[in-house]
Formats: sequence, structure tokens, C-alpha cells
Amino acid sequence: MITAPFFSSAEEVEVAFYDALARADLEAMMAVWAEDDEPVCIHPGGPRLHGLPAIRDAWRQLFASGTRLRIRLTDLLVQESPMFIVRNLIEELSVEDIAGQAPNVVLATNIYASGPQGWRMVLHHASPMPMSAPPARDDAPHTLH
Amino acid sequence: MITAPFFSSAEEVEVAFYDALARADLEAMMAVWAEDDEPVCIHPGGPRLHGLPAIRDAWRQLFASGTRLRIRLTDLLVQESPMFIVRNLIEELSVEDIAGQAPNVVLATNIYASGPQGWRMVLHHASPMPMSAPPARDDAPHTLH
Repeated sequence: MITAPFFSSAEEVEVAFYDALARADLEAMMAVWAEDDEPVCIHPGGPRLHGLPAIRDAWRQLFASGTRLRIRLTDLLVQESPMFIVRNLIEELSVEDIAGQAPNVVLATNIYASGPQGWRMVLHHASPMPMSAPPARDDAPHTLH
Repeated sequence: MITAPFFSSAEEVEVAFYDALARADLEAMMAVWAEDDEPVCIHPGGPRLHGLPAIRDAWRQLFASGTRLRIRLTDLLVQESPMFIVRNLIEELSVEDIAGQAPNVVLATNIYASGPQGWRMVLHHASPMPMSAPPARDDAPHTLH
């Protein structure tokens, strides 16, 4: 049995998360997630995934092509408490080795919890950054705003 | 000066948040947000809003029509610590008094912090629930997946 790494801070977990994402490394990705909690993961445009099996399966599918990404993280906002740390940031994602592309921009809320195995990710909620003005919440479906 | 209400739990804040949203009540909405932190708010399809002035301005615009909503909350997942509580849920939003509409379905991550003024909302990240399979993160922009 492979011993999962011990992350000493939420920031270390986040570095490992985005490193695994960039390299499409499924085992490295799963090593950052909390094992004792029921973590939640929402990919951009995706459904809500709850619990490690569902989260693992989604990452496995996303990584199936093995595409490596270049990831730039900006505009970090942090809210801290002794047991939970919330890091909200903007991800700019490009496919590695392809020139002249406009990056996909994603808004992410990452939540980390401290436990007996160190810090781990307990929630990742990512959504696409809009290109234009946001729709109203009270739009009736299919109604032009 | 109106004294802001004292919320004794994260759940109370959340009830007040969705009540204010349903009634398009700007003052009631702003009363749930943390005053001492720099809260973050992401509406479905919207940009990231940071700090009370930006958050207030967005709600003011969203509420300008005065449209009242019917809101159903489901599938609540809670992660708790003494100072932060994370509530992740699914919102079903319909315009009040309009029959036969399919609700807008939204995934929400709501984070509440405990402070000297009781519990307040520090982060609301909402994104549309997908109707179909999620896109891959490594889609080059405009590439069919």
C-alpha cells in the first residue's frame, strides 16, 4: 500500500492538486482528497460529485486523453480558520505545446480541511468565467434577458 | 442605524439568504453577509465579486425587476468546523406565479463564518447544473469534444 503524502498546509495541497491536473496524473490527484470526509467536486459545467469513488471516476475520464495542461493561477483570495481554509482563485488553462490559443478561464473555490493525515482537499467548485454580462437568476428558462 | 440581525447558526443565515433572494429584498440580503471579512460571491454564469460594495451592486441589479422566486433547496451536504461551515446544495428556482415552467437548477457552495456579530455568509459560489455530460477541462476553446 502506497502511503499518501502528508501535506503540512492547505497551500501544499493546492500546489499538488494543480500539478496533478496539469500532468493528468490520476493517482497524484486522488492523493490530495480527504479520505475520511465525503468530499465534493464540481467541474466547470459539470454535475456535483460526492464521495471519492464518483470524484475519482470523473478525474479518470477527464485524464483519459493524457492531455497535459499549462495552468496559471491568479487573484487568490484566502479565508482561514484553524480547521478549514478557503482559497478562491482564477484558473487559466491552456493545452501544453499548442501555440496561439486563448486560455479557458475558470473560477474556483477550493476548500481544505486539517485532519489526522494532514491537510486535504474537501471541496472543489469550479465554474467557467463569463465573457459577457451575467444572466439574472430570475430568468425564466429560455427567456432572453 | 438599523441593527443587523444576529444569526445563531449557519443554517439561520442560509434561511435568511434564500428568503431575501426569493423576495428580491436587497437590505435583507445584505444583512446576511460578513462585514469584517472580504466576502466573495459568484452568481451562476457571473464573474467573481469581492467585497461588500461589489456584492451589493450585483444583488441590486439582480433584484431591480422585483421578480419574486419560488426556491426549492435539495441535496444538502454539510462540512462543519467550529469557525467555518460549508453547506453545498442544489437550488431549484422558478418565477413565482408562472405555471408550467421548468425550474433553473443551480449548484451552490455556501460558506459561513462565526464572528463577533454571530454567523454570516462569507462565500456564495453558484453555477448552473448541466443538462448533459460535462465538458472536459482540457477542451481547447471552441473545440468540439
